[in-house]
Amino acid sequence: MVRKMVPYDGNSAVAHVAHATNEVIAIYPITPSSGMGEIADAKSANGEKNIWGTVPVVVELQSEGGASGTVHGALTTGALTTTFTASQGLLLMIPNMYKIAGELCPAVFHIAARSIACQALSIFGDHSDVMTARTTGWGMLASGSVQEAMDFALISQAATLEARVPFLHFFEGFRVSHEIQKIEELTFEDMRSMIDIKLIRAHRLRGLSPDRPELRGTSQNPDVFFQGRESVNKYYNDCAGIVQKTMDRFVQLTGRQYKLFDYIGAPDAENVIVIMGSGGETVHETIEYLNAKGEKFGVMKVRLYRPFDVKAFASVLPDTVKRIAVLDRTKEPGSLGEPLYEDIRIAVGEAMEQGLIKLNRYPLIIGGRYGLGSCEFTPAMTKGVLDNLAKDNPKNHFTIGIEDDVTHTSLKYDSSFSAEKDVYRAMFYGLGSDGTVGANKNSIKIIAEKTDNYAQGYFVYDSKKAGAVTVSHLRFGKKTIRSPYLVSKANFLACHNFTFLEKYDMLKYIIDGGIFLLTSEHDKNTVWKNLPAKVQKQITDKKLKFYVIDAVKIASELGLGTRINTIMQTAFFLISDILPKETAVSAIKESIKKTYGKKGEKVVNMNTLAVDATADNIQKVEVPASFKGQIVEKPVVAANAPDFI
Amino acid sequence: MVRKMVPYDGNSAVAHVAHATNEVIAIYPITPSSGMGEIADAKSANGEKNIWGTVPVVVELQSEGGASGTVHGALTTGALTTTFTASQGLLLMIPNMYKIAGELCPAVFHIAARSIACQALSIFGDHSDVMTARTTGWGMLASGSVQEAMDFALISQAATLEARVPFLHFFEGFRVSHEIQKIEELTFEDMRSMIDIKLIRAHRLRGLSPDRPELRGTSQNPDVFFQGRESVNKYYNDCAGIVQKTMDRFVQLTGRQYKLFDYIGAPDAENVIVIMGSGGETVHETIEYLNAKGEKFGVMKVRLYRPFDVKAFASVLPDTVKRIAVLDRTKEPGSLGEPLYEDIRIAVGEAMEQGLIKLNRYPLIIGGRYGLGSCEFTPAMTKGVLDNLAKDNPKNHFTIGIEDDVTHTSLKYDSSFSAEKDVYRAMFYGLGSDGTVGANKNSIKIIAEKTDNYAQGYFVYDSKKAGAVTVSHLRFGKKTIRSPYLVSKANFLACHNFTFLEKYDMLKYIIDGGIFLLTSEHDKNTVWKNLPAKVQKQITDKKLKFYVIDAVKIASELGLGTRINTIMQTAFFLISDILPKETAVSAIKESIKKTYGKKGEKVVNMNTLAVDATADNIQKVEVPASFKGQIVEKPVVAANAPDFI
Repeated sequence: MVRKMVPYDGNSAVAHVAHATNEVIAIYPITPSSGMGEIADAKSANGEKNIWGTVPVVVELQSEGGASGTVHGALTTGALTTTFTASQGLLLMIPNMYKIAGELCPAVFHIAARSIACQALSIFGDHSDVMTARTTGWGMLASGSVQEAMDFALISQAATLEARVPFLHFFEGFRVSHEIQKIEELTFEDMRSMIDIKLIRAHRLRGLSPDRPELRGTSQNPDVFFQGRESVNKYYNDCAGIVQKTMDRFVQLTGRQYKLFDYIGAPDAENVIVIMGSGGETVHETIEYLNAKGEKFGVMKVRLYRPFDVKAFASVLPDTVKRIAVLDRTKEPGSLGEPLYEDIRIAVGEAMEQGLIKLNRYPLIIGGRYGLGSCEFTPAMTKGVLDNLAKDNPKNHFTIGIEDDVTHTSLKYDSSFSAEKDVYRAMFYGLGSDGTVGANKNSIKIIAEKTDNYAQGYFVYDSKKAGAVTVSHLRFGKKTIRSPYLVSKANFLACHNFTFLEKYDMLKYIIDGGIFLLTSEHDKNTVWKNLPAKVQKQITDKKLKFYVIDAVKIASELGLGTRINTIMQTAFFLISDILPKETAVSAIKESIKKTYGKKGEKVVNMNTLAVDATADNIQKVEVPASFKGQIVEKPVVAANAPDFI
Repeated sequence: MVRKMVPYDGNSAVAHVAHATNEVIAIYPITPSSGMGEIADAKSANGEKNIWGTVPVVVELQSEGGASGTVHGALTTGALTTTFTASQGLLLMIPNMYKIAGELCPAVFHIAARSIACQALSIFGDHSDVMTARTTGWGMLASGSVQEAMDFALISQAATLEARVPFLHFFEGFRVSHEIQKIEELTFEDMRSMIDIKLIRAHRLRGLSPDRPELRGTSQNPDVFFQGRESVNKYYNDCAGIVQKTMDRFVQLTGRQYKLFDYIGAPDAENVIVIMGSGGETVHETIEYLNAKGEKFGVMKVRLYRPFDVKAFASVLPDTVKRIAVLDRTKEPGSLGEPLYEDIRIAVGEAMEQGLIKLNRYPLIIGGRYGLGSCEFTPAMTKGVLDNLAKDNPKNHFTIGIEDDVTHTSLKYDSSFSAEKDVYRAMFYGLGSDGTVGANKNSIKIIAEKTDNYAQGYFVYDSKKAGAVTVSHLRFGKKTIRSPYLVSKANFLACHNFTFLEKYDMLKYIIDGGIFLLTSEHDKNTVWKNLPAKVQKQITDKKLKFYVIDAVKIASELGLGTRINTIMQTAFFLISDILPKETAVSAIKESIKKTYGKKGEKVVNMNTLAVDATADNIQKVEVPASFKGQIVEKPVVAANAPDFI
């Protein structure tokens, strides 16, 4: 079967499967999971059907407590039911989660995993929320990429029906949830193949019904409660095997093989990193890069965190391992160590005791925290973790990615290290609401459709939202892109607002010889002397190819107001050589018809004219061979500012 | 200073301290913690003051979510604030708990730890609730007895103010919360000595105030959130030391020495049990008994579970240890093992790596579950755990106290084993609302006041409450009573309702030669032939001393209606020899005046007459030397019952 390659973000990838494989969807919005609920709601509002031909009921409750209670109730009647949440929302679901698992109701909750408000609120991603729910008896399946998010949404839905253990399917909020990747879209046919109708019938028959009266939700006294609590054991004993079996059926359909624990790297690695979620992609990329240079590292990606299968873990851990660094994307103050670290130590210990792995001695195992609240986790940091691991006395309970100059937990690392190869990287500094993000999403779509490139897009919004800077990070390449972190070595960088040059040091992110595109009222002859001295120096030092266009003027003249997106998008294609110029121009015009068709011919024409005007007005600036002048940094606080500032 | 010895249950012991050391108390009732809130509310309603002379504000919220939010808000203004909860109530507090800990607000929540509703609801005790909250960054201090509950309520309140880490102070619901023990009552002077007024002033000055404007509760982006999260580290690094220092100040006052980890048993033990909460008392009692017979066991009671202090742990673990059994009173399906088991494995491993303990090799460490939903945990079960631990291939991930004939996790044990010595044990089968429990509480009070005996009372209510059976379990002895489990080898057993003899096999709980008191309309001459054959056999086989009294008739004649409590209480003292008869009779009469004084002279007189009538009417029954006859068990279901039954 030929499947479509389509750009998806994680939320829409999951919603694609969740809406198609459920009947009742109870929602309550919380960033960054809201997209899943919104999409599901919109699909049902549009009459979109699930794979069995019915339109799922989507109902918004008064809180996550109500949403989870509704899920529990619907499951108890035998309906296929799901919800989406994150952070404090998931915490409010915990009481119902104990009930749902205790009563062995099959269900999947899709979680855009987010940090929990502590010293401050953070809407960004880490594993604090799902780790708090790890006591509830739910299966926990971690996706590390947008493709995996779609795949695991289906695998977990198929597995829960057989296992009767409910699942948290989770992926990092504001990375996987919002990162756009070109992925292979699962079809309804795929979903029908994976989900066994007999298991749905069994779920239906377990539903409460006046035709089959049965008592549920009783109160049990000390004489029987413990026994009842243990009666779930066999389901948990079987669960991991069922998930692997489901993954093995999935590979038959799609060719994508997943394991409960995926080991990548040298078969005879001595130093191994264990990690869960999108950070695993970063480590994967880094280790491939380093191993190509002769190193022998390995990474174990934990897919199924609960139930934790010691045998499956032991079966992929190389017998040669001597040192393991376990990375946790959560923090539990006062604990001995974070949960994955603890579990890996126990798993290695129990596997050795049971003879499941042959190691001469218990390996050195250390743990560290990374990426809390979407703190960047890069190949450079991965290298820092590997360097620490190789030391005589490696630091345990470390942090990576920050500088802790108080309790000295942090590891040093060389931030200039990069593991990216053969990937085109572009950055766009836009003004909130100027259309930059939309244009970039459109560019990804064009590249996804017109080339066999993989594509990735990630958009960083200032928390002040509209009117502030938004930075788009795009990557294109022939191979799967395993870089769930911001672009820092751009081949192409565009500045969509001249005044940003004063405020943001953006050119530190561009590589030598890269392309720099600037919208400017100054033309190629006058722009240079209007640039800040520091920018002049960066352009000359890095020998950048420097282009200007007065996008604001063109937009204004064509009646587009401040919407310079079409012009800047066209300029990107014209000077970046990602696509042949003609292909790009016709693709942009095609998409203008699709995007603005509803708004009438006039708007379509204005934008089409903008494309043509761009080609006529883009100018290459002659860059001096070297920088002459002096950089004067403006003081952060004006000399005459009042004390309060 | 001479302190009073007073019978307290855990809830009232904690409320005594919590009300005296706080200013704002936000409550919402949930079994079995409600008593704490009720007592605090009543104290403030009566104008009782805290140790600083103000009456705490007690406010009942709409749910535990609101109670915890109120605590957070009050703490943020610099008020001393607490709450009480359990089970799902605690789960609803988790979001606010992250905030309170993240902002380093000193506070203690007192938890009557209870199981969480899963396959069924249970109002009974285990550690599932507090273990779910272990991710939040709160300190966790476990009390194992009523005395400890009072002591640790004060220690945690004193420690949190210095450490700024908030604490969960927890103790098993429906054991410690409701068990009555004669304990040494802490005075307001004790509390004032323990709580440093300078620390309260510092807490006040950290409070938000228009006089000292300051921003709190911000939203942090990926550039700083992780750094902020790590900024709490030094408080957690210092916390355990502060708790130990507080415990060391406490011993100066009271003579009761506590450690973060208390090790009891052979200094050269090879086999050690690690446990937390009241189960530690059972293991303590069992190991003392077995070691007196020449064994060399040890038990480590975990007091401060979070922050977990590896050094303190290692400092009390004997270097001789070869095998450790860790007992968890919670279940986390899908995990590798329950949390205390995991932590102890990590703690031993890290302590060895850091050279904190000198062991030749990593000891064998196994884990098991016990006591879920107040399932009994007895010396017999402890012995079963120790027997398993000594085996060549001890079972790991076991259960104790149930029979798991499906997944075979359970350990076998000899249920006839007992470790109790020199303790007088009494059981009373009463009808709900017949006054039996009240009379027994009164008996404990009399014994506590008139003798130097320690006393324990625990009351098992049928979940149908009024009108069903209630069984009182009383113990008296010269030494501290470490038996947080039901009486099963009674020296004295009273049946306050003749028909119970048919329904309950109560005499299996009485020892040979014990005293059996029955209320009966049949006198000493006619009662025998009216007894069920099985009861006749038990009485003769066990050579019981058998007494009857027609308490119902006496009560009725005196105008007491169905309230036979005074009569049965008097009968207990007259035939049990716990106290000299005259002392007992005058003490009962004295307490009648106190109890019924408000109801008028007539009621006092009726009850006083009942005491005298009891002495005149109690009859010893001549018991045949041996049982002759045949026991015919009634079928559980009548032969002519309809199919539905």
